Amino acid sequence: MTPYTLYGFKGSGSAAVEAALEWAEQPYRMVRTASWARGSALNKLAAINPLKQIPTLVLPDGTVMSESAAILIHLGLLHPQAGLLPAQAAARARCLRALVYVAANCYSAVSVSDFPQRWTASTDDAAQQDVRHAARAQLHHHWSVFADLFAPHVEQAPDTAPFLTGLGAGAADQPGAVDLLAAVVSKWSGTRAYLKAQRPGFLALLQRIEQHPRVEPVFARHWP
Amino acid sequence: MTPYTLYGFKGSGSAAVEAALEWAEQPYRMVRTASWARGSALNKLAAINPLKQIPTLVLPDGTVMSESAAILIHLGLLHPQAGLLPAQAAARARCLRALVYVAANCYSAVSVSDFPQRWTASTDDAAQQDVRHAARAQLHHHWSVFADLFAPHVEQAPDTAPFLTGLGAGAADQPGAVDLLAAVVSKWSGTRAYLKAQRPGFLALLQRIEQHPRVEPVFARHWP
Repeated sequence: MTPYTLYGFKGSGSAAVEAALEWAEQPYRMVRTASWARGSALNKLAAINPLKQIPTLVLPDGTVMSESAAILIHLGLLHPQAGLLPAQAAARARCLRALVYVAANCYSAVSVSDFPQRWTASTDDAAQQDVRHAARAQLHHHWSVFADLFAPHVEQAPDTAPFLTGLGAGAADQPGAVDLLAAVVSKWSGTRAYLKAQRPGFLALLQRIEQHPRVEPVFARHWP
Repeated sequence: MTPYTLYGFKGSGSAAVEAALEWAEQPYRMVRTASWARGSALNKLAAINPLKQIPTLVLPDGTVMSESAAILIHLGLLHPQAGLLPAQAAARARCLRALVYVAANCYSAVSVSDFPQRWTASTDDAAQQDVRHAARAQLHHHWSVFADLFAPHVEQAPDTAPFLTGLGAGAADQPGAVDLLAAVVSKWSGTRAYLKAQRPGFLALLQRIEQHPRVEPVFARHWP
């Protein structure tokens, strides 16, 4: 079988998909490129995904996927034994909500903060910095809301609060798709410094996720 | 059984969820409110979803969901007979990608366009208009990319191109979750006027979606 092909880059959102593929025990070929890189690999990525997003994942049958949250949902549904998503429908619904929340409210605000010149018609430097600052404030607020919604007890019990995916009562408490995406997307745009001040228990949970034996090897490659 | 409770408003994103609930033949109680409305229903929504997003859907077991794309995926998985998502894994993966794409790239740009004052630290009116204009340009570009990615043949054959959900060869060609979300989110921020000029075949497909007998009654209530 042709394995998966993952287009990604060190320190990027592809870390979450790499971890998911390893948990699902799926062989994959890694192509290292990014929109800020140059060369033939970037041309190949552009040919299959004009947005040049990473991660982009080519499935064994040739189907091209992008959008980290969608990729994690797909792998979770296809490989239930990996425990990326809960089996029980209501717990799974909560995870779908959390994954799309991160994609729509957090990941998208990181894009505004990273490329403020795309989000104002002004070419003035100060105007672009005003957009960057506001985007970071929006991003940080969205993470506070995320912590309160999806980890309501974490500030009281940061060392023992369950992971975010919530595999349900009776299941071994281990990280899953939501944990992977939250740990990666919170790496950027000052989110963790903000959480240290505003939601220290949630920051501790994110640190427990990235130190988990299933996650640590992937994160060590991306953020050595 | 306690039915679903859907918080929504006329002309809002709740239209897509209403249609999905009806296709899945699930009874639901509608609570009409929105962040721009006032009154006791808004207080109730704020109590279960501090972001006061509509649609917010309360599942029969009390689980609270938000994020239209996540709700559509959940209903699609739970009620396969409704045909909201394809049964075949690769076709389903493509739909997951399209749904998260709309949430992360289009819906989020509508939010910037609607509330530019949140996306610049400047309190200057002209600076906020610069953000609104750039957000609309980003939004429109994201729709062009969407059309090219998910409906590549539509400009050649606007009247016969298949619907977006792609239930797969052999299945009756009918709209599904992706069609519902695209038809609703494209209603806003000048998207359809832009598509009329830039992707007329894709606009014709969106119009076929909203005129489909499964969709038309819901759209007629929301956009009479």
